[in-house]
Amino acid sequence: MYFYREDLINVIVPDKPDPAAAKVMQEILGGHFGEMRTMMQYFFQGSNFRGEKKQFRDLLRGVFLEEIAHVELVQTTINMLLNGAGEREAGNAGADNAPLDEAVKHANPHHFIIGAQSSVPEDAAGNPWNGSWVYSHGNLIGDLLDNLVLESTGVLQKSRIYEMSSNKTFRETLAFLIVRDNAHQNAFAKALETLGVDWGKLFPVPNYDINKYPECRKYVDMGFHNVQFNFRLDETRIGEIFQGQSPSRNGGSMQVVQPPEGFPVPQLPEMPNEHSPGLDDLNL
Amino acid sequence: MYFYREDLINVIVPDKPDPAAAKVMQEILGGHFGEMRTMMQYFFQGSNFRGEKKQFRDLLRGVFLEEIAHVELVQTTINMLLNGAGEREAGNAGADNAPLDEAVKHANPHHFIIGAQSSVPEDAAGNPWNGSWVYSHGNLIGDLLDNLVLESTGVLQKSRIYEMSSNKTFRETLAFLIVRDNAHQNAFAKALETLGVDWGKLFPVPNYDINKYPECRKYVDMGFHNVQFNFRLDETRIGEIFQGQSPSRNGGSMQVVQPPEGFPVPQLPEMPNEHSPGLDDLNL
Amino acid sequence: MYFYREDLINVIVPDKPDPAAAKVMQEILGGHFGEMRTMMQYFFQGSNFRGEKKQFRDLLRGVFLEEIAHVELVQTTINMLLNGAGEREAGNAGADNAPLDEAVKHANPHHFIIGAQSSVPEDAAGNPWNGSWVYSHGNLIGDLLDNLVLESTGVLQKSRIYEMSSNKTFRETLAFLIVRDNAHQNAFAKALETLGVDWGKLFPVPNYDINKYPECRKYVDMGFHNVQFNFRLDETRIGEIFQGQSPSRNGGSMQVVQPPEGFPVPQLPEMPNEHSPGLDDLNL
Amino acid sequence: MYFYREDLINVIVPDKPDPAAAKVMQEILGGHFGEMRTMMQYFFQGSNFRGEKKQFRDLLRGVFLEEIAHVELVQTTINMLLNGAGEREAGNAGADNAPLDEAVKHANPHHFIIGAQSSVPEDAAGNPWNGSWVYSHGNLIGDLLDNLVLESTGVLQKSRIYEMSSNKTFRETLAFLIVRDNAHQNAFAKALETLGVDWGKLFPVPNYDINKYPECRKYVDMGFHNVQFNFRLDETRIGEIFQGQSPSRNGGSMQVVQPPEGFPVPQLPEMPNEHSPGLDDLNL
Amino acid sequence: MYFYREDLINVIVPDKPDPAAAKVMQEILGGHFGEMRTMMQYFFQGSNFRGEKKQFRDLLRGVFLEEIAHVELVQTTINMLLNGAGEREAGNAGADNAPLDEAVKHANPHHFIIGAQSSVPEDAAGNPWNGSWVYSHGNLIGDLLDNLVLESTGVLQKSRIYEMSSNKTFRETLAFLIVRDNAHQNAFAKALETLGVDWGKLFPVPNYDINKYPECRKYVDMGFHNVQFNFRLDETRIGEIFQGQSPSRNGGSMQVVQPPEGFPVPQLPEMPNEHSPGLDDLNL
Amino acid sequence: MYFYREDLINVIVPDKPDPAAAKVMQEILGGHFGEMRTMMQYFFQGSNFRGEKKQFRDLLRGVFLEEIAHVELVQTTINMLLNGAGEREAGNAGADNAPLDEAVKHANPHHFIIGAQSSVPEDAAGNPWNGSWVYSHGNLIGDLLDNLVLESTGVLQKSRIYEMSSNKTFRETLAFLIVRDNAHQNAFAKALETLGVDWGKLFPVPNYDINKYPECRKYVDMGFHNVQFNFRLDETRIGEIFQGQSPSRNGGSMQVVQPPEGFPVPQLPEMPNEHSPGLDDLNL
Repeated sequence: MYFYREDLINVIVPDKPDPAAAKVMQEILGGHFGEMRTMMQYFFQGSNFRGEKKQFRDLLRGVFLEEIAHVELVQTTINMLLNGAGEREAGNAGADNAPLDEAVKHANPHHFIIGAQSSVPEDAAGNPWNGSWVYSHGNLIGDLLDNLVLESTGVLQKSRIYEMSSNKTFRETLAFLIVRDNAHQNAFAKALETLGVDWGKLFPVPNYDINKYPECRKYVDMGFHNVQFNFRLDETRIGEIFQGQSPSRNGGSMQVVQPPEGFPVPQLPEMPNEHSPGLDDLNL
Repeated sequence: MYFYREDLINVIVPDKPDPAAAKVMQEILGGHFGEMRTMMQYFFQGSNFRGEKKQFRDLLRGVFLEEIAHVELVQTTINMLLNGAGEREAGNAGADNAPLDEAVKHANPHHFIIGAQSSVPEDAAGNPWNGSWVYSHGNLIGDLLDNLVLESTGVLQKSRIYEMSSNKTFRETLAFLIVRDNAHQNAFAKALETLGVDWGKLFPVPNYDINKYPECRKYVDMGFHNVQFNFRLDETRIGEIFQGQSPSRNGGSMQVVQPPEGFPVPQLPEMPNEHSPGLDDLNL
Repeated sequence: MYFYREDLINVIVPDKPDPAAAKVMQEILGGHFGEMRTMMQYFFQGSNFRGEKKQFRDLLRGVFLEEIAHVELVQTTINMLLNGAGEREAGNAGADNAPLDEAVKHANPHHFIIGAQSSVPEDAAGNPWNGSWVYSHGNLIGDLLDNLVLESTGVLQKSRIYEMSSNKTFRETLAFLIVRDNAHQNAFAKALETLGVDWGKLFPVPNYDINKYPECRKYVDMGFHNVQFNFRLDETRIGEIFQGQSPSRNGGSMQVVQPPEGFPVPQLPEMPNEHSPGLDDLNL
Repeated sequence: MYFYREDLINVIVPDKPDPAAAKVMQEILGGHFGEMRTMMQYFFQGSNFRGEKKQFRDLLRGVFLEEIAHVELVQTTINMLLNGAGEREAGNAGADNAPLDEAVKHANPHHFIIGAQSSVPEDAAGNPWNGSWVYSHGNLIGDLLDNLVLESTGVLQKSRIYEMSSNKTFRETLAFLIVRDNAHQNAFAKALETLGVDWGKLFPVPNYDINKYPECRKYVDMGFHNVQFNFRLDETRIGEIFQGQSPSRNGGSMQVVQPPEGFPVPQLPEMPNEHSPGLDDLNL
Repeated sequence: MYFYREDLINVIVPDKPDPAAAKVMQEILGGHFGEMRTMMQYFFQGSNFRGEKKQFRDLLRGVFLEEIAHVELVQTTINMLLNGAGEREAGNAGADNAPLDEAVKHANPHHFIIGAQSSVPEDAAGNPWNGSWVYSHGNLIGDLLDNLVLESTGVLQKSRIYEMSSNKTFRETLAFLIVRDNAHQNAFAKALETLGVDWGKLFPVPNYDINKYPECRKYVDMGFHNVQFNFRLDETRIGEIFQGQSPSRNGGSMQVVQPPEGFPVPQLPEMPNEHSPGLDDLNL
Repeated sequence: MYFYREDLINVIVPDKPDPAAAKVMQEILGGHFGEMRTMMQYFFQGSNFRGEKKQFRDLLRGVFLEEIAHVELVQTTINMLLNGAGEREAGNAGADNAPLDEAVKHANPHHFIIGAQSSVPEDAAGNPWNGSWVYSHGNLIGDLLDNLVLESTGVLQKSRIYEMSSNKTFRETLAFLIVRDNAHQNAFAKALETLGVDWGKLFPVPNYDINKYPECRKYVDMGFHNVQFNFRLDETRIGEIFQGQSPSRNGGSMQVVQPPEGFPVPQLPEMPNEHSPGLDDLNL
């Protein structure tokens, strides 16, 4: 069973609205290699796990738990990038009587039609999330290799999306997730190491230059690339895998730690023009 | 952030394998009105919520938390229905050298190909789960009405699927979920009641006869159709909505209670023939 | 604007339930070359038509109108094939407490889960109808050639599906539609004839032997393969195209005629076990 | 059977081409909550209807008939927004030898590739219409609640899309459809009222301010939010439901009336550059 | 079995990057009527061919072989249009620290996220290629008519896309493919001629004016609209169909010839910022 | 450019029709991890390759070439499993006038509707092949790891499907492909070895017991698990990677060899009842 404390796993740094950034950020939420996929893939792999080697199951389950919080972080980041996107064009000619005219030009129109300027389960091209992307092979090595591809591609795509806007809300969330994907890459690489693989200098994949993504530095300094947060309320054997020398050539020691203290979930403002939440005339 | 205790929200009653039942049960997991949809829909509605009336957000979030446990319960139920499905045909002519020959006849072949006899994110016809089914309208009344359709259809479909096998593992899970969907129907109906609707005798929808689904009785006797389990580790305002007289003509009083004590997650046996988990030769 | 008279375009011949036949019949309703596609394709081509040669637009519009009635005929046929499908297994051991156990074995489970034993917008493999199949090329020759492929494949698939059950409800609808697809094949072939093509002996495609599909004979005897029903309440120039010698080597003269007199829409019985329509306890 | 008179259900107000507006308008045609969905959903619900209470079936059928005309109105509106979209950039440098260069920048490229600047069965993000969105639950209350969500979301989305362009062709069609969706919301709300629900002040959802969408006023003044057009050529019992006091807090009396007189279907100009219709060299 | 020589079937003309052109070019690669569809459709039709008339099978197979080379040509063209797309904005304010900011504005974001500025199996609206578009009817006339629609639409769409950019890389590839689609249109039209059809003046469809697409002229002068390249290493009977007078009113004589000599496959530069190929730190 | 010799890459062993086997075999053709995916994935990775290390590009290209032949082998195997599937039920009561009645019971109905008993681009559950499954990451390590998952899952799924029928046509093709997937697993594992990975005893994944799949033995005896066939007509650097000690614990030496001599492509019989090819009445 699943329990919740209303805290985000990372801070939302304030900045201006940026619907074009929100559009590409959707790949991280609802894309083939986005957080919804990682969340559901580890969920299925955990529930479908066979056999007695529960240290692996606890690893899959443990990463799954964090991915739920990642989905919430990305949803919230997208919402913050959209918040007020219609209003900021207010000075433009023509915009005063068609306030969304400019906003949708480089945006995903679904952000402004389906919801009231909020996140949707789609990728950066507007395609809906698809269950066929989730894979639970049954064979543990297959599952671990697949997850390694997933986390490596997570870093890769986030590092490319990072170049698409200098918005601070956008970049902070990407930077945090790049470092956490790196940690999860280490988790699955390490699990394969326990099965006999020696990765040499292969990881991290890709080999991101921390100076290129400066927001990453503080997370690396805190060791977030080498820890796994423990969201279990009961015992877990995850530490039997997630321990010892990192499989990455960046080195360091892997350990299971308490989750971050948590950051406030922002209260999104009402949008009367979007009829959201739309209770005004009910005299509540 | 999300926390976990390794317990199922309801008991798994043992019975024989039944891959045909597992196939239709997939609608409850990955179908248009299945548990993956309810889970993701309330997740998005909660994260995208606008305004100060957090009692509604806490309601959406609260039901979401239970739905994660529902997804896990259905995954596990499907796994138990599949476990050993290949072996039971062992006496059949021809089956000894093609053990899955019979098993796949009325089954979803993906249960035996994609995983090692385990659940997949698909519906009863084998279609992958689709993100376009999830809707977060932004307008609270729209969201609540949509959720009411979702929970009503949940009961409706489960009552129809119930007729498709007399397997006890299958029926117990369906019965528990029918009663819980009823509670969530009450939750959203009640929320609309607070906005001024008087439902008359409309609910429950459909008006299931408890004698037709005998496994439901004990859950109704325990009042599970009128309670909401609280999975929050911090404060929640859900009780401002989920309280008072039930909107259903079955009556009763609504209240927020502690979650069930929890039931053991079964350890699924290894399946060497399916290469699951497939670690045998690694001398671990 | 569109007007309606509650009549089916052809008779529903009574026979026993046959859910396996209903399953394959779905290809004719919601498949790539089914009636939903023909209906929507001619609708888009008609609305998107460019230029002054309205005789072609009236042809597209005219066939579209009949296709709406075809969709209704196939929906109704599927419903009749499903009606009572659960009950007929009543004598079977085990079936009395799982009445749908047998029914779903060779069926599309969605017929028994999504609706109360009724038609769905899917193909014979359970895939949802897809808008990308509809094509309105803008170029008239492209549109006519595409429609010719559509109608030829309509006959081809129906003649193959015909072999899958000897159920009379099933075969009568298929036979009527085979002959009407033939007429529409003639319509588009003739339109291309007016643009200069001489088809030689190419049509009909496929060259079905009327003795193989005996139910077709009466429709051919009535000339239904060479007429177009006129559903317009105002003037139409369709007769400028749909006239003269048939482009098929079966010969005959093409003409526009009044629609059939119409046949009663069956009243489907209530299904209390399926909660359909489910108003029992509302004392209406 | 279905009959047709070549008239649009509402006027097309002339204005300049606006391909960006055409792009977002596609949500109203081929989106999850667009007119193709409403048309097909009520078609399936009508054909699959069970039992003797034909007043409900006639209601479903009656709204379906109008939705066909809505689809045609939206197709035509999109076509008018696209007409000449390539030409208006003629003065731009570079545009003279790549006339569509500017046109596609904020457009759905399919408008210019698949057809000759005309409507497609897609949503605003370019996703094809999907049959899994159509739902015919079999349970009448489920169907009515689902339809209520559909019509409420119809108004909601149209009011948001309205803000995306001040083009008159665009806004007039949206305004007409907002008012008609309101009427259909009243229809399904009223049907549930006959089953015992008292909606209080819940409707209309959303509670649109008529001064914000000035084009709506004349339709409200004509009472179009409280009437249902009757497209039946035979008897119908729709008036047993669609009558009496409106369930909306805007009040008024509901009645079934004759359809609008109808408005001319525009003749779309030929586009030789797009090879549409492309008959020039055939000397017809 | 399939053999390869590393040569492109046509030249890549150098020009500047143009991600907006790359986006619309995707329709030619992964769209409903793109080269991936033609390739796979003729592959299935060839492998599924029935009967002794192998001249038709060899025709299907022969065109299939060329289509593989077309897919490679379009992939390469898209890659050349994307190469360096991020860098050219380097002078822009803000762009120096978000180099892809401008590049993605009118682009398919997947070009910059999924790959390192390279082609994807999607259409111009970002929808993934879909197997349901491929059709192998089994009936030869159906297959040939379908292929004729496919090749005609190929020319039609390419002639429309041609107007969307004056980029030389883009237009040269389109022009070559327009002429080759014309040849394949002739191939299937001719095959139907051998079955008795006289096309009159119908073809080519559409009737493109070679002066409008000047890059086409040299290919027509080389007779590329009337030849079929022979990629078989063994005997083929394709020449029994592909011979004699062209079915197009442009006339000329059809013949099977040797493939073009071939053009160099460009070596795409490394993109360290995109981590492609990302081997830098491995000291290889 | 691509060249062809009409030979299958492996023998088709004759046996009886088995449409249930044909249905599950579709996963190998059109499934998420089937041969169409491997073919298209390596095609895109090869065309999108960046940089000077062409030995890797030649590896990707080389495996791609073989995958085209694999697709053809699986298409042909499915066709042989379907050939005559309708006729063998001839003795059954009722079957004489509905010859496909029995055939479709455990079959994919599309095999009998879309084509004339032939292969389709779908998976074992009838879902169309989807372009979103193909991934070309741009980062070489990401591509190689993804391909390793692909080939490992290829073996895994084929070994599970093998248990679903003892049909010889079916099992021979599966056995050949299991061994070839093993070789391609070795290819990508070796490529990563050149980048510094030591796999220990991890491979092969899964660790199939050759005695369980006896048809595999002769291919292993011929060394097919350790060779790569060379389909290049020009120079290739593939041998710089594909050489030396196998990365599998089964050992052996890897080498590039000439392709198999080839096996005859069977001529599929005409099916007049299915109108295939349907030329009978054209007096050709």
